[in-house]
Formats: sequence, structure tokens, C-alpha cells
Amino acid sequence: MTIRIDYDELVHLLAAMFRRHGCSDHVALLLAENMAGAERDGAESHGLFRIAGNLGSLDSGWVDGKAEFTIEDVAPGMLRADGRNGFTLPVLAAAHDALVAKARQNGIALLTVRKAHHFGAVWPDIEPFARDGFIALAMVNSMASVVPHGGHHKVFGTNPMGFAAPRAGKDPLVFDQASSAMANGDVQIAAREGRPLPPGTGVDRDGNPTTDPRAVLDGGALLPFGGYKGAAIAMMMEIMGAALAGSDFSFEIDWSAYPGAATPHGGQTYILIDPGRGASHAFTARMETLIAAMHAAGQERLPGDRRYANRRENLAHGIPIDPERLAEIRRLAAE
Amino acid sequence: MTIRIDYDELVHLLAAMFRRHGCSDHVALLLAENMAGAERDGAESHGLFRIAGNLGSLDSGWVDGKAEFTIEDVAPGMLRADGRNGFTLPVLAAAHDALVAKARQNGIALLTVRKAHHFGAVWPDIEPFARDGFIALAMVNSMASVVPHGGHHKVFGTNPMGFAAPRAGKDPLVFDQASSAMANGDVQIAAREGRPLPPGTGVDRDGNPTTDPRAVLDGGALLPFGGYKGAAIAMMMEIMGAALAGSDFSFEIDWSAYPGAATPHGGQTYILIDPGRGASHAFTARMETLIAAMHAAGQERLPGDRRYANRRENLAHGIPIDPERLAEIRRLAAE
Repeated sequence: MTIRIDYDELVHLLAAMFRRHGCSDHVALLLAENMAGAERDGAESHGLFRIAGNLGSLDSGWVDGKAEFTIEDVAPGMLRADGRNGFTLPVLAAAHDALVAKARQNGIALLTVRKAHHFGAVWPDIEPFARDGFIALAMVNSMASVVPHGGHHKVFGTNPMGFAAPRAGKDPLVFDQASSAMANGDVQIAAREGRPLPPGTGVDRDGNPTTDPRAVLDGGALLPFGGYKGAAIAMMMEIMGAALAGSDFSFEIDWSAYPGAATPHGGQTYILIDPGRGASHAFTARMETLIAAMHAAGQERLPGDRRYANRRENLAHGIPIDPERLAEIRRLAAE
Repeated sequence: MTIRIDYDELVHLLAAMFRRHGCSDHVALLLAENMAGAERDGAESHGLFRIAGNLGSLDSGWVDGKAEFTIEDVAPGMLRADGRNGFTLPVLAAAHDALVAKARQNGIALLTVRKAHHFGAVWPDIEPFARDGFIALAMVNSMASVVPHGGHHKVFGTNPMGFAAPRAGKDPLVFDQASSAMANGDVQIAAREGRPLPPGTGVDRDGNPTTDPRAVLDGGALLPFGGYKGAAIAMMMEIMGAALAGSDFSFEIDWSAYPGAATPHGGQTYILIDPGRGASHAFTARMETLIAAMHAAGQERLPGDRRYANRRENLAHGIPIDPERLAEIRRLAAE
């Protein structure tokens, strides 16, 4: 049985919970909106499912919920941020206006974030930029869980790449996909629910293929999606998310001294492009031409469509939630 | 039996051939270097194999080998070019210095090219930028040959994405991969050699899976690599290569009035990033740390390694070539 909870009420409860675990008011609100937003949009693997990992990261001192991050303006088209071991969300919120201004001025702009915990999905980072009329790219590294092409041990993170493009009068076209054959959160959910993984998803601790999610999580590793091409994209995310940003590679992240911690402390690069800058054409009209052709060829749903449908449904009727989980959140928010 | 030909001699012959088929001296030399360079690097599907298609495109008037392209400086970080129905290579060559200057000044810069024939591989476009110390991204659309996710008809091109990153004192790390399960040129080679395609490569004209390369080429279509994730990347290449650049989508390209033409007339977007700009770290040293970890995990070869090995071998000893093909090239260059 599930009940439903109002989005605003869920944000309120989660913010109280994050405050009680060491976050500033501002950071707590950003984390709560992000987590409640994932749950609202049906993105279960980045929603309430991540409470334990996030609180473990805060309680252990692995992440600083009041970090005093820095943002440097290093070039007309480039901002470089140091998360100072806090979360990415407040850095991104603080950099938003300057990054948008640089993209409008220069046509393209880039923000790197180092030493920051990216605990949520990537699409909430970039969807707002597309609503403002920008094309946005996000490249993120995380914690080692994916073997390189032809390799036996994990090196890359699940390393998502996100892409968002504006549409006129419609929700933006947004995708966000792990470079692994499956996202870590989905492997954890499969393990919890006792479901096998599809073949080609991962290997066990000896490097042998397995469909057992526990074998993947227990010293095994994920495979990249699409063979060597997905592996190349995972590598690109390490280069853009970590080497360029000045952050740790996925395989360098060591939280062994922080029991219970589970948020990756890596780097992120965001690129904004102003499609209207100097355009001799109407970008958003062309987007509709492309999308119409995709539908005419038989593609029923666009990336993001399911999230937007869930969002409308759950904003209107409340977000489905297990009553025991809700009771636990109320306890965590009040304790 | 194959003989070997000197790279410079092959360039000389190919340039003469392209001049005789309507290219200016400058364009002919750029095309010749690109085609001979692909053959030199063992990239057969973008080498001499493409002579017929290129000459067909020139002879039919589908491409203009003396096009007077334009390059507009539309923003501090953005150049927009119109190929005016010529090849991409001369546009890229003409824009090179300005794009590099913008990337150095702004930290990041972007070049779009519309209405231009991209007849070669993507890695030769971006490798030189990485040799100059830049991270380079290339996003290219082409001609419809790939079905969208869940679709039945082709919409996207094979739409390659290229990525290059500099290394200190070493050849750059460069990959260039089609968004399709296989490149069109490789399907053509399989058809010529009578080899079946791996399962999951394509569909026939009725949308049914097939391993027959002729069925894919004859009204069928390719599948994206890696399922819906590869399809999302193919879509991103259409948005970046065509919608942003102001060019035609892959499915809009109509050369029915140009018999024998075979070069795609689409759009390209190039992004350059200066990793040293404002860096508080040594990017190229970090690249070596990442590459060492990939090798330690069992990855033997990096993207591009085989090309560089072929290049060294074939620059030292000559490029292998079938004597009949060489005779045909000599005839085409002299006729």
C-alpha cells in the first residue's frame, strides 16, 4: 500500500532531516528539493532511496553540509569552482547567474566543479538551463565501478552524461545516462528486490560475467554500455569531470575512513551554449522538425517524457510513498 | 599482393585527381591529405575506399570543390560558418587560427559549420587541436541511416562524435565513434566482401533485424549502438550538428537529383577547451594517471593507438596499396 504526500510537504520534511544532519538551511533546502524532485518525477534510484547514503555521508563527516565553496572567474567563458568537500548543488546554484551571463556574452561557457559530492541525478542540474533557452551538457565522474574496455578491474565511475535542449512552449528535451550498462542505484534496487540483472551488465570480483546484483556490488564491477564505445564515453567523463575540473578520478576516491558514507566526491563539468547567439535560423523550430521526424519513424516517447508525465501526475495528486518510509522520514526530521 | 606507396606521393596523386574533378588547388590538397592520412593510419573505411563516392559527388555537381564559404565571428566564443555546399575541410582549415585564439582567450570556444560535406573521418579534424594543447569535441550529423529508439524507419545519420585530449610528449588521446552500431563505410566494405554483419547491427527495409549488409544498404537501416543510450547520442549529434549549426538534418538530405553522389551534406559543431586556462593543476599529468590506471586494470590499447602504430609503420615503409587501385588512381590523376 502506498499513500501520497504533497511535494512541498516532502521538501519541508527532507529539509528538516538534512538540517538535523549537519546541513545549512540553504544546502538542506537544495538537497530536499532535489531528492523530492527525483521522487516526484519517478526517478526512484535518485530519490528517497538515497537517504541512507546521504545521511551516512553527512554523519561520518565525509561530506561537509556547510562547506564554504569557492568559485573563480578564470576566463571570459570559464568558471572554476572548488566544492571544498560539500555538495555540488549549492555550488551550481551559486554559479548559475554568472554562468548564464557568460554563455549569453560569449555564446558558450563552461563551469568546472571539483571536490564536490554529486549526490543526485544529472537532469535536475541541466533542465533549468534549457528552460532558460540554453543547450546544456553535463559530464560527471563518480566512484569506481566500471571496467575499462578489455579490462578486468573497475576504474571508471558510472559517469553520467547529461544533455538538455530547449523547446518553445514545451518541456525541454533532456537526457541523462550512465556510461555503465546500468546505474549503480538500479543495481542496488535489484539487489534489494532480489532480481537478476540482464546479461552484459556486470562482472563478479574475479572479472567473470554475472547476473547477480550482489556479486556486482560485492567486489565486482559494471560493464560500460555498448561495448568499447560506452567505455570511451566513460573515459571522456573522467577526463572532463575529473582531469579538467582538477578533481579526483573515480578510482582515487577513498572513503574507507568514513563508514556509512555513500555519496561520490568527484568533479563535474557543465557547458552552456546559447543557440540564439548569432543564429540565422530558429533553433527551437528546428527542434520540433527533428522531434516530429522521430515520432513519425515510430519513436513513441522522448527522453524525459516519462519524468514530465510523472511530475504532472504527482504534483496534482501527491507523490506515492510507502507509509513506513514516510514515518521514518518524519522521525529523521524530528529527532 | 600489395605494394607500398610513399605518403607524399599518394597525396600528390590524390590532389591531382581531385583537381581534375573540379577542386581548387587548396581544397584538392586538403582532401588528398585527409584521404591519404586515413589510408596511412589504417582507417580503410575513410581512405581510398571513398574515392568513387567523392568523385561522384564532385562530378554530379552535388558538392562544390571551389565553394566560397563564409565564417562569421558572432560572439567572443563562437564562430559560425556556412560551407556554401563545399567540403568541411577547407572551412575548418580557414577557421583554425581564429577558433584557437578564441579558446585561448575565453577558455572555451565553439565553431559551427553548416551546408558542408564532411567526407572523412572525424579524428583528423580534432587531433591537431589536441596537439596544440586543447580538449576538442566534434559532433557531426550525416545522412539518414539509423532508426531512433523504438522506431522503424531511419531518421538519424551514423552521426559520429569525436573527442581528443592532449598528452605531454605523446600522441593525443583521440576517439571518434559512430552513434550507429557500425559505420556506414564498414557496412559497405562488408557488402563488398560478402561478410555478414554481427547481430544487432541493422534492420532490413521492413524494419526486421538482419545480418545481411546488402539488406541494410538497400532500403534498410542501422541500429544505434548500445540501445536507447546510443540513440540519445545520435539525437544529440543531430541537435548539435544540424539544429545548432543551421544545417540540414540527416533525414532532410536529398541528393536524388545528383546520381553517383555519396558525400553527406550536413553540419558539424566543434568545441575547443583550454585545459590550462586558470588551472590549478597539471592536466596532462592527470591524463597520465588516468591512462596508467586503465592499463593497470587490463586495457591494453587506447583509442587511437592502432592508428598511431599504423602511421609510424606506413610513414617509414610506405602505405600498402593494391597495384590495380594505384593504377586506377594514376589514371584518374592524369586523365
